[in-house]
Amino acid sequence: MLGIYPGTFDPVTNGHLDVIQRGSRFVGRLIVGVLANVEKDPLFSVPERVAMMREAVRNYPNVEVASFDGLLVDFARVKRARVILRGIRAVSDYEYELQMALMNRRLAPEIETIFLMAGEAYSFISSRMVKEVIRLGGAITGLVPPEVESRLRDRYLVHSTQTL
Amino acid sequence: MLGIYPGTFDPVTNGHLDVIQRGSRFVGRLIVGVLANVEKDPLFSVPERVAMMREAVRNYPNVEVASFDGLLVDFARVKRARVILRGIRAVSDYEYELQMALMNRRLAPEIETIFLMAGEAYSFISSRMVKEVIRLGGAITGLVPPEVESRLRDRYLVHSTQTL
Amino acid sequence: MLGIYPGTFDPVTNGHLDVIQRGSRFVGRLIVGVLANVEKDPLFSVPERVAMMREAVRNYPNVEVASFDGLLVDFARVKRARVILRGIRAVSDYEYELQMALMNRRLAPEIETIFLMAGEAYSFISSRMVKEVIRLGGAITGLVPPEVESRLRDRYLVHSTQTL
Amino acid sequence: MLGIYPGTFDPVTNGHLDVIQRGSRFVGRLIVGVLANVEKDPLFSVPERVAMMREAVRNYPNVEVASFDGLLVDFARVKRARVILRGIRAVSDYEYELQMALMNRRLAPEIETIFLMAGEAYSFISSRMVKEVIRLGGAITGLVPPEVESRLRDRYLVHSTQTL
Amino acid sequence: MLGIYPGTFDPVTNGHLDVIQRGSRFVGRLIVGVLANVEKDPLFSVPERVAMMREAVRNYPNVEVASFDGLLVDFARVKRARVILRGIRAVSDYEYELQMALMNRRLAPEIETIFLMAGEAYSFISSRMVKEVIRLGGAITGLVPPEVESRLRDRYLVHSTQTL
Amino acid sequence: MLGIYPGTFDPVTNGHLDVIQRGSRFVGRLIVGVLANVEKDPLFSVPERVAMMREAVRNYPNVEVASFDGLLVDFARVKRARVILRGIRAVSDYEYELQMALMNRRLAPEIETIFLMAGEAYSFISSRMVKEVIRLGGAITGLVPPEVESRLRDRYLVHSTQTL
Repeated sequence: MLGIYPGTFDPVTNGHLDVIQRGSRFVGRLIVGVLANVEKDPLFSVPERVAMMREAVRNYPNVEVASFDGLLVDFARVKRARVILRGIRAVSDYEYELQMALMNRRLAPEIETIFLMAGEAYSFISSRMVKEVIRLGGAITGLVPPEVESRLRDRYLVHSTQTL
Repeated sequence: MLGIYPGTFDPVTNGHLDVIQRGSRFVGRLIVGVLANVEKDPLFSVPERVAMMREAVRNYPNVEVASFDGLLVDFARVKRARVILRGIRAVSDYEYELQMALMNRRLAPEIETIFLMAGEAYSFISSRMVKEVIRLGGAITGLVPPEVESRLRDRYLVHSTQTL
Repeated sequence: MLGIYPGTFDPVTNGHLDVIQRGSRFVGRLIVGVLANVEKDPLFSVPERVAMMREAVRNYPNVEVASFDGLLVDFARVKRARVILRGIRAVSDYEYELQMALMNRRLAPEIETIFLMAGEAYSFISSRMVKEVIRLGGAITGLVPPEVESRLRDRYLVHSTQTL
Repeated sequence: MLGIYPGTFDPVTNGHLDVIQRGSRFVGRLIVGVLANVEKDPLFSVPERVAMMREAVRNYPNVEVASFDGLLVDFARVKRARVILRGIRAVSDYEYELQMALMNRRLAPEIETIFLMAGEAYSFISSRMVKEVIRLGGAITGLVPPEVESRLRDRYLVHSTQTL
Repeated sequence: MLGIYPGTFDPVTNGHLDVIQRGSRFVGRLIVGVLANVEKDPLFSVPERVAMMREAVRNYPNVEVASFDGLLVDFARVKRARVILRGIRAVSDYEYELQMALMNRRLAPEIETIFLMAGEAYSFISSRMVKEVIRLGGAITGLVPPEVESRLRDRYLVHSTQTL
Repeated sequence: MLGIYPGTFDPVTNGHLDVIQRGSRFVGRLIVGVLANVEKDPLFSVPERVAMMREAVRNYPNVEVASFDGLLVDFARVKRARVILRGIRAVSDYEYELQMALMNRRLAPEIETIFLMAGEAYSFISSRMVKEVIRLGGAITGLVPPEVESRLRDRYLVHSTQTL
């Protein structure tokens, strides 16, 4: 069975990796789909986000990374995926995810969205909060992969320098 | 009894129409109030949104459409409405609706906000999601009235052409 | 328009009365339906619950009280009601109410369930909590009508005597 | 991949069957696990619940039915299942499911709980509500398989006769 | 400042202890109030629940344990507590807690209920689930203090023997 | 015990003051922390927000006001606070607050976030809704302190003039 795990991943966090690890154990092949076309300005470009994700999943032999644009279900169909994987942390996530999944089911009834719980240790980690913490000078060790942490530091160092 | 069903309706969806149909059966007269003054840039102008709504409700003899600006309760008072009608789909909707309704009750205690459930077939349809799907090239047949669908296609065709 | 406001009312609280007062202002006639057939042993018998409710609504000329058994929608049909009125306080209420309303819509599509918000001063009052507080010796003045308060005191006095 | 779909199934509803149908499309083999040891008195015995389920899934070649007792994860291990399948309808379901899934993850980290959304048409159907409706004389056609409907009628007819 | 941390504690879990540890760091003195008068039959008697709690908190010099009956706010007043401490894990907890806290505020406006988050590692642990797991033969090491674990094993061993 | 009550306070509402009043009764000293660095453009400058807050809390001898930038936990550490105080109104608040609190616990495990319930009369008041109501010409008396009300009127009067 082939699964897609879609997201913006701006940047990938250890919460995302937890979902990828769990998912990769029961789907035969897992494609991490990096959404190119995001409404809000992402911090990292598509190639950067793909590169960070590839680095982070390099030890999972059945996981690959690709970027996509347009409808998720079109990407899933092209890849011949049977399931879309989503991680849920909170009730508010869950409601939005449900609406998305019902819309995707309508657009592509043959593809099923399945939800995994993020590990409880990751329940408070989001890309947004990680960026906020590092922007304000806090420590994010253990929340993102080391490579992502150093890229984030570089990015915010440059930003800080610019505002001097 | 006169009721107001307020909203941005950018554009009207079949979920909105489901609420209008249900509401029109138990209020004597129903005024659909199209909110003119919206924070985020709407896709359609006020006259367009009013026109699409008028077209969509043309078969309901006791439903009329009007745009309004300013406080909803002031509009309701001018129209001498007794109730404000709201459709709710999800828990997160519900909480925000509750705060709005409590504020409106404080501003106009004589007007009651009443909530209807959207039909379960419409639980995942929102104006925002419909626009997102069509923007990405997906099919929205059955989610909005036919007239709205063709207007949406025109709008996004123009948009797409502009970006070429 | 005729509306039904159903419940166990074991006993009626000021939160119920708030919903009845608001509802009675926009339905022409409101029937409070006291559910006879309740799973858990009620504290008060059906005639007692009906009597307390009649006493509590005696000043609302367009409100009447009746007990019913069987399906709510059958009762509503016999009474030729157009709407079922429900008050909601909390998110957890809301979910259960939604499932009930969807089931009732399936059983009787011509009857609409509409929801009112309880006043925020009543958001923490339930029949269950009122009974719990008085059983433990607390004051419930302001939470239930005076007549209900004295009946509750009588009831729990008897109970207490029995356990001495 | 082998999956377990556990439940009390007292009785199986069309909502359960919707989850089974969706699940059976992406797991190689699906075992429906009928929980024998339930706290509340079930309406149907274990053999009856198993028989109704077998009848309901007889057209799915990769679905089998078995009853179990004790810990779900022990049953899953004995069966060598990789995933536990759960359907979620509402936010309140979701929270309880999350706690169960976290506990099961602690007890058996190698087994993953995955969640499917019930179809929106089934969002209001539960075994409890189906029994309540039929007990009160309402129609449940379309909510449960035909075989289950006739068994429910028989059961409640007997019950009703007893109370005459 | 003196705080009360009330509960049934049937039995105390590591989740409770996490709240006690956090709370004991910012209130001067913390009284754990073991509720004697519980509706459902508890597994352990009041003296047993008090003894297990005393054993579990013996290393916190500013924490003491007492049982109480009747209204929590009456107990808090007798003890001259300024705050009632409650741990919250999930949204559904939170709603019920809110209603309790509003009722308690009405009964004793001078006492404030304050909420602490349980550590995320304890988000799925409840007394009820711990008892369920051990009853079905699962491992609960790390979920309750060692002393509680051995008492639970004794209790269920006796129970099992009885059913043989 | 020293507590911090952080927020944007753009502007302070009577809901905030309710939390401050309750909190100031059980912490020895309460510092209201006005967040300087906010993403969205605030209506009032930092000095204005601090001045309005100082005016509003002038009668609480153990409450002081300070602005801060950067991480909340860094501010709390500099001030040697033991607790961070947060008011919660709704379930959706609660989830976000939980994630913030878990992140802050990770960044500063020695500081505890504690939650107070806003009084039920304030459950629908937010700075955002107050600004929206006054912008549309509604009355906000009783929702904010008198001084804040007059500043808000001045501000929106100027705004209105500019748009003429």
